[in-house]
Amino acid sequence: MVQGAINQNTKLTKDWLQNYVDDWVKFYWKHTKEGELASYIPHLMQADKSHLGISIMGINGVTIESGDVDIPFTIQSISKVFTFIVACMERGVSYVLDRVDVEPTGAAFNSIMHLEMKQIKKPFNPFVNAGAITVTSLLNGKTSDEKLEPIFELLENILGYCPSLNMDVFKSESETSIRNRAIGYYLVETGNLESELDLTLETYFKQCSIEISLKDLAHIGTILANDGKDPKTELEIIPKQVARLAKSLMLTCGMYDASGKFAAYVGIPAKSGVSGGIVAVAPPRARHEDLPFLEGCGIGVYGPALDKQGNSIAGIRLLRHIAKQWDLSIF
Amino acid sequence: MVQGAINQNTKLTKDWLQNYVDDWVKFYWKHTKEGELASYIPHLMQADKSHLGISIMGINGVTIESGDVDIPFTIQSISKVFTFIVACMERGVSYVLDRVDVEPTGAAFNSIMHLEMKQIKKPFNPFVNAGAITVTSLLNGKTSDEKLEPIFELLENILGYCPSLNMDVFKSESETSIRNRAIGYYLVETGNLESELDLTLETYFKQCSIEISLKDLAHIGTILANDGKDPKTELEIIPKQVARLAKSLMLTCGMYDASGKFAAYVGIPAKSGVSGGIVAVAPPRARHEDLPFLEGCGIGVYGPALDKQGNSIAGIRLLRHIAKQWDLSIF
Amino acid sequence: MVQGAINQNTKLTKDWLQNYVDDWVKFYWKHTKEGELASYIPHLMQADKSHLGISIMGINGVTIESGDVDIPFTIQSISKVFTFIVACMERGVSYVLDRVDVEPTGAAFNSIMHLEMKQIKKPFNPFVNAGAITVTSLLNGKTSDEKLEPIFELLENILGYCPSLNMDVFKSESETSIRNRAIGYYLVETGNLESELDLTLETYFKQCSIEISLKDLAHIGTILANDGKDPKTELEIIPKQVARLAKSLMLTCGMYDASGKFAAYVGIPAKSGVSGGIVAVAPPRARHEDLPFLEGCGIGVYGPALDKQGNSIAGIRLLRHIAKQWDLSIF
Amino acid sequence: MVQGAINQNTKLTKDWLQNYVDDWVKFYWKHTKEGELASYIPHLMQADKSHLGISIMGINGVTIESGDVDIPFTIQSISKVFTFIVACMERGVSYVLDRVDVEPTGAAFNSIMHLEMKQIKKPFNPFVNAGAITVTSLLNGKTSDEKLEPIFELLENILGYCPSLNMDVFKSESETSIRNRAIGYYLVETGNLESELDLTLETYFKQCSIEISLKDLAHIGTILANDGKDPKTELEIIPKQVARLAKSLMLTCGMYDASGKFAAYVGIPAKSGVSGGIVAVAPPRARHEDLPFLEGCGIGVYGPALDKQGNSIAGIRLLRHIAKQWDLSIF
Repeated sequence: MVQGAINQNTKLTKDWLQNYVDDWVKFYWKHTKEGELASYIPHLMQADKSHLGISIMGINGVTIESGDVDIPFTIQSISKVFTFIVACMERGVSYVLDRVDVEPTGAAFNSIMHLEMKQIKKPFNPFVNAGAITVTSLLNGKTSDEKLEPIFELLENILGYCPSLNMDVFKSESETSIRNRAIGYYLVETGNLESELDLTLETYFKQCSIEISLKDLAHIGTILANDGKDPKTELEIIPKQVARLAKSLMLTCGMYDASGKFAAYVGIPAKSGVSGGIVAVAPPRARHEDLPFLEGCGIGVYGPALDKQGNSIAGIRLLRHIAKQWDLSIF
Repeated sequence: MVQGAINQNTKLTKDWLQNYVDDWVKFYWKHTKEGELASYIPHLMQADKSHLGISIMGINGVTIESGDVDIPFTIQSISKVFTFIVACMERGVSYVLDRVDVEPTGAAFNSIMHLEMKQIKKPFNPFVNAGAITVTSLLNGKTSDEKLEPIFELLENILGYCPSLNMDVFKSESETSIRNRAIGYYLVETGNLESELDLTLETYFKQCSIEISLKDLAHIGTILANDGKDPKTELEIIPKQVARLAKSLMLTCGMYDASGKFAAYVGIPAKSGVSGGIVAVAPPRARHEDLPFLEGCGIGVYGPALDKQGNSIAGIRLLRHIAKQWDLSIF
Repeated sequence: MVQGAINQNTKLTKDWLQNYVDDWVKFYWKHTKEGELASYIPHLMQADKSHLGISIMGINGVTIESGDVDIPFTIQSISKVFTFIVACMERGVSYVLDRVDVEPTGAAFNSIMHLEMKQIKKPFNPFVNAGAITVTSLLNGKTSDEKLEPIFELLENILGYCPSLNMDVFKSESETSIRNRAIGYYLVETGNLESELDLTLETYFKQCSIEISLKDLAHIGTILANDGKDPKTELEIIPKQVARLAKSLMLTCGMYDASGKFAAYVGIPAKSGVSGGIVAVAPPRARHEDLPFLEGCGIGVYGPALDKQGNSIAGIRLLRHIAKQWDLSIF
Repeated sequence: MVQGAINQNTKLTKDWLQNYVDDWVKFYWKHTKEGELASYIPHLMQADKSHLGISIMGINGVTIESGDVDIPFTIQSISKVFTFIVACMERGVSYVLDRVDVEPTGAAFNSIMHLEMKQIKKPFNPFVNAGAITVTSLLNGKTSDEKLEPIFELLENILGYCPSLNMDVFKSESETSIRNRAIGYYLVETGNLESELDLTLETYFKQCSIEISLKDLAHIGTILANDGKDPKTELEIIPKQVARLAKSLMLTCGMYDASGKFAAYVGIPAKSGVSGGIVAVAPPRARHEDLPFLEGCGIGVYGPALDKQGNSIAGIRLLRHIAKQWDLSIF
């Protein structure tokens, strides 16, 4: 048994866990060299690909952090989770699900082909670009600021502060993300968008450019792990039904076209972004009862060196190891 | 709150639960009229499409049954779970996963197109036909009986008796399942099969023709819910790693091209077959602690009237309702 | 033998031919009821779907016209022939063919899927929208007027007058042809366009909106039939190599995804547009020697009621009949 | 002007042409080194990839041969032309065209994907494998010998002798052409075959294994160039409608997924096989009147070194050069 694995007879202390996490981050750090920075948004090329950090926050409030935890980064595709949640809260779950399906695709996140091949009435799921752009168009509001307001409000409710937009990244995305514009026009033609395309894309690029920290990602994960309630205040921030739905989508579609492998090898809901961030969610399980820390937790990972599917290459290995050692799998 | 939903302050009794399940089966029975029997295997057309039954077995041994529980049926695609488990036990998980991927496809179970379109090295996952045929070819043995022996052994270890083959169904499948032969030859050409095609297909058709009962399905589900251990004897029947992997695949790929919707709306691992059977697995969760019955359970459903994706049309609705009422979702 | 068919022993007179053509137009007119006007460009809905007319111009100058010959219409996709010819004349054949392939696709003219599915370096051919937009981007000029100038010049050289733009149609196309914008952005991302997208699309929509008459179409066809030379003056208007190339592309790709059927059943190069126009080209053949009129000819057809592939439904039947009766097939 | 090109004022003699053809064969011979032998049928690997030969036969009976003209070879996919012709003669053109379309695909000859992707009722055309297998199933006869009899009869009518089967190649194909079996089972399932699959495939592999010579190919081409009539006897061997149809299909679909390029750059109907043979057809054209030899001709080419599309790499270059020099293009 690898050291650091759960000993069912031991009440683990935070320090004990912290030591192991420190070791694991050091061990998996070498894989950062095997990945590449995202190149299609120029601004993301400024990241340092040797960075790797993790933040873990238990539902009981215990927090463990290790590695490069202080680098702010933009959330990119992780925003698709928030947009989906907010759209469900604003318009109702069934309204949203009438306009976007919840099936994994087997294709890359930016595929146009799948839209045409199946002559679909609605995009495959809210976490491929076509689906996320559709969901963004459902948000209320006549300007991108109005549309984004409830997303910022949601984040503020969770984090206790309101994150800001990184305008340099926003500009970089607006200028370069041509494929999204192609997808957008396709969706206009097929009648899938409920807002004007320019407004929708502006909102979409802005939500991708929200800048947060690793600790924030862990915090968000904790709320989802706790089915949408703040563990401290027991206030409902996200309706339970919506939180559950978001987690199921994270599991089946959250890690681009490596989602199946992540479900099989790690086994917890997660969503990645091309900036190198991942938010992962370990809901509480009966079999964790000996491990007070793990009543369930949220995990944030940051490592901008990506694998071919666009996920943090070292981050995924680190998550896989932790999930195995701590028996986090939901299965 | 719908009646029968979990009251967090009440220790439910078996009788109390039984009453609710009886009501729900009666309520959802009407949907059997909306589905169709599987037509591509002539023998399956002999089923009675008005049948609907359920069997639930808790890890603690409590059992609830309702509806048409005494109709024997062949397991069809549910066999893909056992074949995958046995192949992993015989050849090792990594050997098997080098030969079949674990990604959902977004396509129908019998698609050939996806093999060619992506010029893949290995089929998408072990639960589409191409993947299942590949996995069957990995089983040890020079005859179909030799190959099937460990599958029967596994079932006997779980069920306490050895199920039999329905030879009429086997013949019916052998004669009519032409698409599988097309897929098979494709896999021969691409070098994916490790046994001769005729032997592989004979084994494949036989494993689909194993006949069991609803109670058996629930029993199998319980073992998976308990991570491969028999809850009574605490003996390991399936290695934990393999059981977990099987459950993750059931969640992402188990319900044909409605797997994403089943994950979103029901939220538990399940595998269906075109005979109308479904085995579903609810692993124990911390939040179930008030409900002794639900330390985790296996669920078998039988309803041969199918929806367009090939899943039991009333069975899915029944499972969705129960999962919601008893808060079974793993998310 | 149907009346009007070529009697190898008779020198046909123009009057004799005219009578037959009049009969045939009357006979095939009934099929106009089976088609539909193009709906995706609103302005085209104003056409009268009962119209059907034909103009035939021999290399020897004899002209036969019948039916609705005086309705001006926009050339739509027929412009793809001119743009391709002009691009080849401006940039050289090999430069253009390095940027667009010459293969038929088996897919609809406005497919995006095919671009992604084959991960192609260049669009399939210059007569699908993706290819035509790419070719338009190759035209010299910094404004759409500059880009279009040589196209208008070419048309003036052929027709003896300069046709005009129908600005209502241009506006209607600019506002509604969303799919072309999706295709355009896709091509920007893959690096296929050599002009800015807005400029390219403006030019593309304008060239589609050039308004001409049936007689003009026949005239253009005659020049192509004569390998680019004006039969009267013997001046080269289009280089022979380019004229030949254009005709080969019209045969393999000119009639949308019915090109193969048109080649098989009619057997002459042709290009259609969604306004209901078709330009067809019958090059001179040895076996026509008894028929002075048919040293080769150009044919214009107009019939805005379209079939499912977007070709004039009555026009195609009329062309098929004439080609058979007069043995025009190039095969 | 390249030497050997047609001088419109000169009556070319056979010797004069022979000299040029000898030079061209020598010049293009070097390209044999750039290709590869077909590998998927083991027996074809025994060919000598440095071979290159050509045989040209005018409708007027003049014959020119050069290079490796005495190597017998199997016709492979060239047989698809004969099978299609015979099926049309046996069952009628419309019966056959109800069961196979005549559209080019944009995909490889052995694609299964295209069948599924478009959920087609009939294969794309008779020259892709799916279409050719379908057409073979339409032939009358209860054994492969009965089915092949009219094909041999047709060849005997043209060639004056009955070619034989190369049984080694037949065996090699039967044993290895797995993909065709996959395609075959797909077609069985979709109800496209009118004979049993084993019988159909046996017939299909046999027709591919007919062995002929270069001179035979040229002879066959001449009959097609002359619209199905024997130029010497003026007897109709193939009905004119069928010969025309076959030529149109050769132009749009005859050279695998390089058919569009062959039409554009060479401009005459042709069909290739993976053994390295090509039969090309230059129908008579008015503009050839100064060149008595070229009242139209058939051309056979043999060069077993293939390009990526499966066509003779040197043979295509040689044909392109000759077509340009002698102005053979039908456009």
